[in-house]
Amino acid sequence: MKPKAWILNIGNELTIGRIVNTNGAWLARQLTLRGVDVRRIIVVPDDENEVCDIVKQGVSKGIALLVTAGGLGPTPDDRTVEFVAKALGKKVVLNEEALRMVESKYKLHGLELTPERVKMAYLPEGAKPIPNDVGTAPGVFMSVANTRIILLPGVPREAEVMFERYVIPLIKDVLPRLCVVEDGITVEGLPESSIAPLLKTIMKKYPNVYIKSHPKGSELVNPIVEIKVLASASNCDDASKLVRKVLEDVKQCLEWRQES
Amino acid sequence: MKPKAWILNIGNELTIGRIVNTNGAWLARQLTLRGVDVRRIIVVPDDENEVCDIVKQGVSKGIALLVTAGGLGPTPDDRTVEFVAKALGKKVVLNEEALRMVESKYKLHGLELTPERVKMAYLPEGAKPIPNDVGTAPGVFMSVANTRIILLPGVPREAEVMFERYVIPLIKDVLPRLCVVEDGITVEGLPESSIAPLLKTIMKKYPNVYIKSHPKGSELVNPIVEIKVLASASNCDDASKLVRKVLEDVKQCLEWRQES
Repeated sequence: MKPKAWILNIGNELTIGRIVNTNGAWLARQLTLRGVDVRRIIVVPDDENEVCDIVKQGVSKGIALLVTAGGLGPTPDDRTVEFVAKALGKKVVLNEEALRMVESKYKLHGLELTPERVKMAYLPEGAKPIPNDVGTAPGVFMSVANTRIILLPGVPREAEVMFERYVIPLIKDVLPRLCVVEDGITVEGLPESSIAPLLKTIMKKYPNVYIKSHPKGSELVNPIVEIKVLASASNCDDASKLVRKVLEDVKQCLEWRQES
Repeated sequence: MKPKAWILNIGNELTIGRIVNTNGAWLARQLTLRGVDVRRIIVVPDDENEVCDIVKQGVSKGIALLVTAGGLGPTPDDRTVEFVAKALGKKVVLNEEALRMVESKYKLHGLELTPERVKMAYLPEGAKPIPNDVGTAPGVFMSVANTRIILLPGVPREAEVMFERYVIPLIKDVLPRLCVVEDGITVEGLPESSIAPLLKTIMKKYPNVYIKSHPKGSELVNPIVEIKVLASASNCDDASKLVRKVLEDVKQCLEWRQES
């Protein structure tokens, strides 16, 4: 059983559709490649009810990893820490370690600690700050019941460096010892609905391999279909072999189909 | 009170992070610009439990619009119709109107109606098919309690044409008579944490206008901040005027700040 994860992306700029949720896809990819089963990527506005509802649901369902991005900055609408604390019935307190992180960043540039900057050092009680080597707002790490909660900033470069450098070591014990490999082929001239019965047969043969067709051209006039195969194994060699084997089977079936 | 919407994007290719959820952002933008309050954009895999859970939650919370994208195609893992029907306690039945839509598409190209193709004409009982002028799988429209449910394909071009051409007329009575306008300015040389207190003051002055800062450069070394303002009014002229007025106020405050 793979550990389950939810990704929660917080920000009005996402729910009004001004920006596309690239953070969600990046985090989903990183978690998937490390053997985690991402069940939901949820986008909500900077809103107490929405954030609290998702955090409560995730913890009560026992989701192993709940990773949020967004709402940690210095502006008044950056309220993720406050909302998450509220959902968990925890107080928000000034964290000395986080304050040192924030202070050192601004001091380096001769800037004072204004209330907006100190705000970024307030964390839910019992939480651990995650260093932000690229920006200024620290991330947050907490363990609540069966769920590890990780709060990251919404700026992609900050979230990415923090995730790879500090979050992975923090959640190492939750991650399975798995290698996940993906590869694919592109098929031209056959509509997806004609490929479907072939893939059905192959899926039955390999129940633990993820096989999926993606239509790229038009189904009828100029069909182009991408077939992607994703498999995991305890080592990368076995995972690669399995993916290659499935793709060989797919190609063989397609050749039979075209010859007949 | 604006009508609330949830967008549900269905597909393993999204939860494994292979593709970014551009459909979600596009739909969110379209709904926002038409005066709808998008509360959640949720990505789940092609999985019965996940899809059913979200659909049940949305209907029981009385969300006015629940728009899904993905899982309507001919392959065995395209099971959105089945899952949504199950969540609502409805049977899936062959819809004659949908069958005619699918049949005419394939006939035009001299192709037979295979089981995989007929599958796309099975809809929840009582549902109405939405024509797909670009691809082959019809969309689905249903009204359940206080919620309009719209199922669209995952191929962006198909979903977009169907939404603009057929979905908007179907939900017209739910949409407010509002015009939403957005504009922004870019500020260089001031860190976001310094702009925060200015924006706080302006937000207080205009409680119904959405004002948000987005850091683009580094907070400390070379700060670039985009300030976006979004306002709605019963006509586009008033909405534009309001946005311009707020931006003038922002510029004025920034000039005072830089002079002082």
